[in-house]
Amino acid sequence: MNTFGNLFRLTSFGESHGAAIGGVVDGCPAGLELDLDLIQTELNRRRPGQSRLTTARKEADSVEFLSGLLDAPTSADGDTKANIKLTTGTPIGFIVRNADHHSSDYDDLRDIFRPSHADYTYYAKYGIRDHRGGGRASARETISRVVAGAIAKQVLKQVGIDIKAWTAQVGDIACERDWTRLDLNKIEDTAVRCPDLEKARQMEDLIMSVKSEGDTIGGIVAGVVTGCPAGLGEPVFGKLHSLLGSAMLSINAVKGFEYGEGFDGVSKRGSEVADRQVPGGNFLSNHSGGIQGGISNGQPITFRVAFKPVATLLQPQQTVDIHDNTVTVNPRGRHDPCVLPRAVPIVEAMAAMVILDAYLINAGTIDFKR
Amino acid sequence: MNTFGNLFRLTSFGESHGAAIGGVVDGCPAGLELDLDLIQTELNRRRPGQSRLTTARKEADSVEFLSGLLDAPTSADGDTKANIKLTTGTPIGFIVRNADHHSSDYDDLRDIFRPSHADYTYYAKYGIRDHRGGGRASARETISRVVAGAIAKQVLKQVGIDIKAWTAQVGDIACERDWTRLDLNKIEDTAVRCPDLEKARQMEDLIMSVKSEGDTIGGIVAGVVTGCPAGLGEPVFGKLHSLLGSAMLSINAVKGFEYGEGFDGVSKRGSEVADRQVPGGNFLSNHSGGIQGGISNGQPITFRVAFKPVATLLQPQQTVDIHDNTVTVNPRGRHDPCVLPRAVPIVEAMAAMVILDAYLINAGTIDFKR
Amino acid sequence: MNTFGNLFRLTSFGESHGAAIGGVVDGCPAGLELDLDLIQTELNRRRPGQSRLTTARKEADSVEFLSGLLDAPTSADGDTKANIKLTTGTPIGFIVRNADHHSSDYDDLRDIFRPSHADYTYYAKYGIRDHRGGGRASARETISRVVAGAIAKQVLKQVGIDIKAWTAQVGDIACERDWTRLDLNKIEDTAVRCPDLEKARQMEDLIMSVKSEGDTIGGIVAGVVTGCPAGLGEPVFGKLHSLLGSAMLSINAVKGFEYGEGFDGVSKRGSEVADRQVPGGNFLSNHSGGIQGGISNGQPITFRVAFKPVATLLQPQQTVDIHDNTVTVNPRGRHDPCVLPRAVPIVEAMAAMVILDAYLINAGTIDFKR
Amino acid sequence: MNTFGNLFRLTSFGESHGAAIGGVVDGCPAGLELDLDLIQTELNRRRPGQSRLTTARKEADSVEFLSGLLDAPTSADGDTKANIKLTTGTPIGFIVRNADHHSSDYDDLRDIFRPSHADYTYYAKYGIRDHRGGGRASARETISRVVAGAIAKQVLKQVGIDIKAWTAQVGDIACERDWTRLDLNKIEDTAVRCPDLEKARQMEDLIMSVKSEGDTIGGIVAGVVTGCPAGLGEPVFGKLHSLLGSAMLSINAVKGFEYGEGFDGVSKRGSEVADRQVPGGNFLSNHSGGIQGGISNGQPITFRVAFKPVATLLQPQQTVDIHDNTVTVNPRGRHDPCVLPRAVPIVEAMAAMVILDAYLINAGTIDFKR
Repeated sequence: MNTFGNLFRLTSFGESHGAAIGGVVDGCPAGLELDLDLIQTELNRRRPGQSRLTTARKEADSVEFLSGLLDAPTSADGDTKANIKLTTGTPIGFIVRNADHHSSDYDDLRDIFRPSHADYTYYAKYGIRDHRGGGRASARETISRVVAGAIAKQVLKQVGIDIKAWTAQVGDIACERDWTRLDLNKIEDTAVRCPDLEKARQMEDLIMSVKSEGDTIGGIVAGVVTGCPAGLGEPVFGKLHSLLGSAMLSINAVKGFEYGEGFDGVSKRGSEVADRQVPGGNFLSNHSGGIQGGISNGQPITFRVAFKPVATLLQPQQTVDIHDNTVTVNPRGRHDPCVLPRAVPIVEAMAAMVILDAYLINAGTIDFKR
Repeated sequence: MNTFGNLFRLTSFGESHGAAIGGVVDGCPAGLELDLDLIQTELNRRRPGQSRLTTARKEADSVEFLSGLLDAPTSADGDTKANIKLTTGTPIGFIVRNADHHSSDYDDLRDIFRPSHADYTYYAKYGIRDHRGGGRASARETISRVVAGAIAKQVLKQVGIDIKAWTAQVGDIACERDWTRLDLNKIEDTAVRCPDLEKARQMEDLIMSVKSEGDTIGGIVAGVVTGCPAGLGEPVFGKLHSLLGSAMLSINAVKGFEYGEGFDGVSKRGSEVADRQVPGGNFLSNHSGGIQGGISNGQPITFRVAFKPVATLLQPQQTVDIHDNTVTVNPRGRHDPCVLPRAVPIVEAMAAMVILDAYLINAGTIDFKR
Repeated sequence: MNTFGNLFRLTSFGESHGAAIGGVVDGCPAGLELDLDLIQTELNRRRPGQSRLTTARKEADSVEFLSGLLDAPTSADGDTKANIKLTTGTPIGFIVRNADHHSSDYDDLRDIFRPSHADYTYYAKYGIRDHRGGGRASARETISRVVAGAIAKQVLKQVGIDIKAWTAQVGDIACERDWTRLDLNKIEDTAVRCPDLEKARQMEDLIMSVKSEGDTIGGIVAGVVTGCPAGLGEPVFGKLHSLLGSAMLSINAVKGFEYGEGFDGVSKRGSEVADRQVPGGNFLSNHSGGIQGGISNGQPITFRVAFKPVATLLQPQQTVDIHDNTVTVNPRGRHDPCVLPRAVPIVEAMAAMVILDAYLINAGTIDFKR
Repeated sequence: MNTFGNLFRLTSFGESHGAAIGGVVDGCPAGLELDLDLIQTELNRRRPGQSRLTTARKEADSVEFLSGLLDAPTSADGDTKANIKLTTGTPIGFIVRNADHHSSDYDDLRDIFRPSHADYTYYAKYGIRDHRGGGRASARETISRVVAGAIAKQVLKQVGIDIKAWTAQVGDIACERDWTRLDLNKIEDTAVRCPDLEKARQMEDLIMSVKSEGDTIGGIVAGVVTGCPAGLGEPVFGKLHSLLGSAMLSINAVKGFEYGEGFDGVSKRGSEVADRQVPGGNFLSNHSGGIQGGISNGQPITFRVAFKPVATLLQPQQTVDIHDNTVTVNPRGRHDPCVLPRAVPIVEAMAAMVILDAYLINAGTIDFKR
């Protein structure tokens, strides 16, 4: 299914080399002043060709909004605010036209299943596939998520909730895990989006080295949600971290999700990771990662997302075609040696959608409480 | 929300010390011969008091089915098959009465927020909470999952799909990661449910040691789905591993999920983890973990689930109460020093529900294909 | 699917002659004082055998609650309030045991498709059916709806919303259509639940006459929702009347739904049915039936529901069996000659669930509005 | 919510005077040859300005598809089939640009609540509204439904299911109710889309007369689904007629829905409307309207939809504005005196989406049956 969320929902469409990528945001609260420039800024963070670390594909990735918005009222001095629109509560449709699609690059891949790609599985499922640049399985699909997430972020900002993600690891090069010891204002200072400038330099060197070999490398994106009130998330199946995990695992190339102590915590004792609560709604530690029993406890929500090395190599590889013959694939597309830098805004977008959705659902929950 | 799944759905209810735990399974295919004894066997694997490794709470956990089933036809010699029922396609309601609920154990916890429990968060969300044994946040809730999963397993068996999970790590003691080198028939031979008997012994020793200190310890459950056809799972938001991850992260005490190479894969090169496909729908390796682009590729689906050390300690701890006063909590309940052994059937149950749901959804997808 | 609603949800299970009818209410706001006696009172309005107009089946229809509730705090003088429970926000599971099930009455119907029943269609869909008393297609299933609706009603009462339904027509005997000219306090004064006492007497005579012929008769239930604020319902697919219609059409034997002027309005001019708005949020008329563009306008919501004459006759009828042979069916079950009197609380229950669900969804909608 | 359906889903967006109306069709089976010209033909049936009976607004209503489709393979003689595309199983995004939007027509309505429109209710719900031509409440929104329905129709045709709707009544002028006595091939022969040519002429005269008075008139659209196999629809809440009713009631201006005998059946005896089944899966009558117990029985599915006279009059009317002052509204937009002719394709579209969705869900239901 191509719809994500419950009360705040994104429905997404589009293939890498089709006419456009687009989506519909449903359930956005009405009366919000939406800054369209900020949305474009987020798209620019995801855009190909933004640095030497990313694919050379050239795309303006300029978003056009088709519905759900009205001009903001003119200010006292008679000026309409530039690029500020008001949400009306009705669905926000948008498209991003695909421009630089070298579809002919893919002609010789029409009948070939590239190794570790979605080629074979789409074919097995549907009996047909769009072979051009990965079709629907291309990470260009995440454009829609970034647009919807940028809207969600602006709503969340109104209630004091902020979301930050960064590249925490590339290959074996990892930065400090305790986010409170990082300067998150520096994330955008480096092409790789790691706030530790020394580690960032090492990561970039590694990526360029891997690129020169026609190979790829994976990594970890870390994230933190601050300002989230206690009470978001539902017990049992709608646990807040289950929703976050589901969101992150739906991003291309993601192979794992953890929150709080995550996998490292399995070898700790319960007494080591107990978060002692003290008066005033405070806690002396945050091993829980801001969520207890699936519900936010008012502390920062911390999580990490594992990305595999992307499967598209600039090396010849053996595989089979749709006639079950062994063939050699010689890719000629343009691809990222490491998706991490461009994955950061996508992780933020998915987190923003999850938190806003939980926030709106909770508004219905608490209505009769006190 | 207390409903899980799309076409095959479980709706769950019940608290640890209420009258009963129960659920409704909706969307079970009709005409299936359901063996009720096998369902009880799965519940027994989850039951407290089954070994020295688990809580001493005594519960028969005997399931009563209330709807959706008919007696199977009598066999040729006139006997009705014992405990075999036919599914009718209508919802299967069931309950498990709570018997040994020492609610008075919890009287002095009525106003206290135990550290790293869901006490504070439920209170923050609802303004009220059932303090008896964790209420809805108790792992007794997973009884419903095991019943529904045991039904799903029997349906999947009809189409050749099998699911196995085991304890892969307790604390720092880990067994072989490559499941093909383990003898999965030995999982039930040990109380800790680890198929490597030597590692199992070490794990059990560790658990008993931790228990003697009034402390707890975490671990990892690994799982594999075999016999799954290519084509299950949906692109984009309904990726098969996203559904699996969401399912696992909804289990109490779970802090992380990974599939295929998972977090370890982030430091590998793309060329190292490419799964070369060869004629006949086969692959020379399975780094992908049986899923590519969110859709099963016909290889075994492998995944791992991280469990934290449970928060209920048999040690005094400082915390606050609902009046925001600092207090000491002296737990007197009966608890597991390590949830891993009893978590194994729960992980299997959640995996079974996810795979069956994807199987049924796919039946609609492929209808017009060829 | 056996789940109804979005944020306030009922999942239902149970067959006419199985062990129990039951359900799970999810999403009920926490902290509500729930009067269990009022819920039983609603069930008694639906119960068989309550008057000479209804089936002779004897069922106490006594509901047992299994989860989601806590004892209300003791009052100042130390007494716990009798049968008042507090909702906790967790799912409310409940069952009603089936007592008087004369299953053997149905033995000779095992292989027969009764005319205009769901026998053939269930068999066509599932290849199996529970032939005892209609199985899942029996109107006993509506017990779950009445319980959930009785809970919803108590929540709605807290915000000033009230729901009333009554028998507006039996056969050709119809009472006044303008509800403001009826005394709705008299609904429960008559066995047929029509507030016009003279018409009620005629309706009852008609029903007894039809019953004496072994035949059945249909009718119309009318309903009104008062105290509903403006703003409930969603544009486009979630229109409030669409949700109401869907709810009513899901009740056994319902063949039609209309609101406001309904079918009669098709022959009117737009100028005749325009509802002029005047200052103070008031309107000079209510042809719209309280809903404009799918959203409530603060006026009473009026609707009507058409029930067919039920299909179970006390007459011999020709039909076929599962072997496609022509057979005669001689029903011996106990049935209602007219479902209208017992349908009234069911209509109210469904309306209550729809309105509460819309109310909770709207709480999320308006959060950021002003 | 702006999404309709379960496995086959439409998500819709767009306002009357915004940039575009559009939507996303998710869950369309893959590998289908989709004739884009047939889709445009359906849009043309809905288009304004198609006859003297409809609004003078000029819109090409030309649909652009953005995703989910591939060129059909070239035929033997090397030609690509004109305007035939293959579905790929991925979401089909589409837009229809708004061209002739005289937004300035609406400037003086910016602060006015037109009588019996959605103006006040949108304002009450959202605190803001798009006043231009009804905004989201405009019937232009149904463009998305017609596109999605035209796709669904083509899928259904592959399995032998056909859907026809027609104008059965305008004001008091009604055609024969028994559809088997009408020649449905003549529906498109008249501007009003009534297959009884004499009644059609009378209906058109009535509409022109009403139009000349600046007034509007309502009517009834009837529909029939033929070729539908037995077994579609779900018991209890997902009854097939409940889904159909919900779909129809979501169309602008609809005030009622009935199927089979509908409201007329309430005054009949059970013995009069029993549909006797005879060998071969046949029935001697179809009072049930093709659905029994919520599940299709293989007979034609018959239903009727009541449309009110639209609220936009070409007469001055008294109302209030957002400042709660009494004002006179003098509409200058272009509107239909009777929506029935253009509603026919919309009713067909909604029916097609419901039936296809039920068909796909059923594919999952029956998998294990026999």
